[in-house]
Amino acid sequence: MHVIIDRNRMVHDVQHVSKAVSPRTTIPILTGIKIVATKKGLTLTGSDSDLSIEAFIPTVENEKELVEVEQEGSIVLQSKYFSEIVKKLPGDTIDITVHDQFAATIRSGSSVFTLNGLDPDEYPRLPQLKEDLIFSMPQDMLRNVIRQTVFAVSTQETRPVLTGVNIETEEGGLICTATDSHRLAMRRTKIDVENEDLHFQNVVIPGKSLQELSKIVEDTSDAVDIVVTENQILFKLGHVLFFSRLLEGKYPVTSSMIPNQSRTSFVLKTKPLLQTLERALLLSREAKNNVINMKTLGEGEIEISSTSQEVGKVTEQMEVERYEGEELRISFNGKNIIDALKVIDSEEIHLMFTGAMSPFVIRPIDSDRYLHLFSPVRTY
Amino acid sequence: MHVIIDRNRMVHDVQHVSKAVSPRTTIPILTGIKIVATKKGLTLTGSDSDLSIEAFIPTVENEKELVEVEQEGSIVLQSKYFSEIVKKLPGDTIDITVHDQFAATIRSGSSVFTLNGLDPDEYPRLPQLKEDLIFSMPQDMLRNVIRQTVFAVSTQETRPVLTGVNIETEEGGLICTATDSHRLAMRRTKIDVENEDLHFQNVVIPGKSLQELSKIVEDTSDAVDIVVTENQILFKLGHVLFFSRLLEGKYPVTSSMIPNQSRTSFVLKTKPLLQTLERALLLSREAKNNVINMKTLGEGEIEISSTSQEVGKVTEQMEVERYEGEELRISFNGKNIIDALKVIDSEEIHLMFTGAMSPFVIRPIDSDRYLHLFSPVRTY
Repeated sequence: MHVIIDRNRMVHDVQHVSKAVSPRTTIPILTGIKIVATKKGLTLTGSDSDLSIEAFIPTVENEKELVEVEQEGSIVLQSKYFSEIVKKLPGDTIDITVHDQFAATIRSGSSVFTLNGLDPDEYPRLPQLKEDLIFSMPQDMLRNVIRQTVFAVSTQETRPVLTGVNIETEEGGLICTATDSHRLAMRRTKIDVENEDLHFQNVVIPGKSLQELSKIVEDTSDAVDIVVTENQILFKLGHVLFFSRLLEGKYPVTSSMIPNQSRTSFVLKTKPLLQTLERALLLSREAKNNVINMKTLGEGEIEISSTSQEVGKVTEQMEVERYEGEELRISFNGKNIIDALKVIDSEEIHLMFTGAMSPFVIRPIDSDRYLHLFSPVRTY
Repeated sequence: MHVIIDRNRMVHDVQHVSKAVSPRTTIPILTGIKIVATKKGLTLTGSDSDLSIEAFIPTVENEKELVEVEQEGSIVLQSKYFSEIVKKLPGDTIDITVHDQFAATIRSGSSVFTLNGLDPDEYPRLPQLKEDLIFSMPQDMLRNVIRQTVFAVSTQETRPVLTGVNIETEEGGLICTATDSHRLAMRRTKIDVENEDLHFQNVVIPGKSLQELSKIVEDTSDAVDIVVTENQILFKLGHVLFFSRLLEGKYPVTSSMIPNQSRTSFVLKTKPLLQTLERALLLSREAKNNVINMKTLGEGEIEISSTSQEVGKVTEQMEVERYEGEELRISFNGKNIIDALKVIDSEEIHLMFTGAMSPFVIRPIDSDRYLHLFSPVRTY
């Protein structure tokens, strides 16, 4: 193999595929990035077996020469070194020559690196997916959907299926849900389909995969094609393919958990509430339970407070709008509410309660396409 | 005590004094910031007993009212909470009222915090220093002197005196030296003195103190007054006083270590050398000894290389100028050279060797006011 590659593009794409490489893998070949040169261009692959990312650099793109292939071939080079080296090379191009014994010489400017590699034939093949279930959405929308759900997945392995985001089709769209059983984030989104009969449910994508994916998804309205199979999902982003294993197990039915009426409700400005809760958390964090209390003070006002036996207490009053229903005293995990408020883009939110011991809902005021559900904390 | 303080100034000054508070202190009162209100303004103090920082906020500065003192008094509040709270308060001013039992109420905008405090009479007093040995220099120069020396102090407690920067007077100036016994950084600087007979030596300032100091020193030519005593040093920066304990013990005589002739010498461009060493370090870091090799290739060229048995090797050639003397092969700790190159502002440097087994010198080409000395590593 002998290729000469545009350095900037190589840095960019190596960075993408190296996201799939786990430094903690026990399978030696998966510490590497597989590099394959054909007449069409260069393909880079990284994988930790749950997650695989493949990037293709064509010989020419937009009339710019990106890869010059002198001789086809392939090699696997250790991701940890290769990606650092590529980043620091001095030249505009990178010349890679592969010798026998799986060693490669990398030349760029005045630098000559000789790296030990691994046998590319040992590298696992990426799955070939049947493209029966396929849909698409703009990249920026996908990014937003991930941002507004993935923070709420469980980080505990006791119920593995809760460490993922569940997606299922509904008429003309998709419902995406994440919950750690104390809080839930639900997001509806439109999708583009070729086959009107597209239908699936209980497709649970690991939260970790979505976090990596959102680093690669760009802020453009270019479409992502998404292919769903029994145990894999594939996101096609231009020249990058992103494969993730799906989580096994039955995702809980969450639609019935969401109350559709309220006994107390009001409207608050998102940012001031976020800042008030952050101040209250300064003290409740200490006690390590993040408990913050909220109570109504007649119509039109609420009080938010928290107490730490050791440090002291904080009290803050806020005006609310569109107050309806009963007086209320409730306690909750302030950190969970803060997480949700950070991903709400709307300036105002609607809070809906069905009593001090029942889950409550926060929705952006200008959209019924997403909501957050929280369990209260019992304090008295 | 009852005071109303400009919030921005309070955030700024609390941030300064909290740098002296150690989260790991075993003396409860030192977890706090001491706040004293007098008719003249507000004084904040933080200390870990080695290092103490005092900031004074006058009632009025540049015709702007900063503090309104309703009632004099004092309190100690836990630094960890107080500094976070001050940063997040919503109002433009902060109203602090101290009650009996060392509790304080802090009001700002809609927020009301009540914090448990400690008895200010238990807070240790700052030393009163005799101002016999005093000199001054511009703040930006002090910052540069710290930057160019402190990185070379020892991080090991086996010879405590080497964890500090030694300062001593010479005619019309100061010599500042740091060494961990493998490398040495020496910086000469001019100082302003009132008493022409100013003379001291073996004044060793802990590296940790200087690192904190350099975060407070500003990028202005305003003067810092520096007071030296037997076991303390005081830096006076406007309204901020920075006290540090000095290290005990005899600092080694370093002037005799610096060779004043060379058997091989040449000039290199600083930044390209830095980048070449950083690439070479990618492989030598792996073997955990950071060893990089340099050899001359006839006049006008050198080769820099490093090898990792496991990963591979890198070789790079560089052109040099003003080459004089013998051929040379030498190995060194690349990380140490990189640290030094990062603080050299000159575009070109002079390297002077006295053989493969002897210490060598790097100097900026446009200044004889500082130099770096390195021990080679024996590899063959």
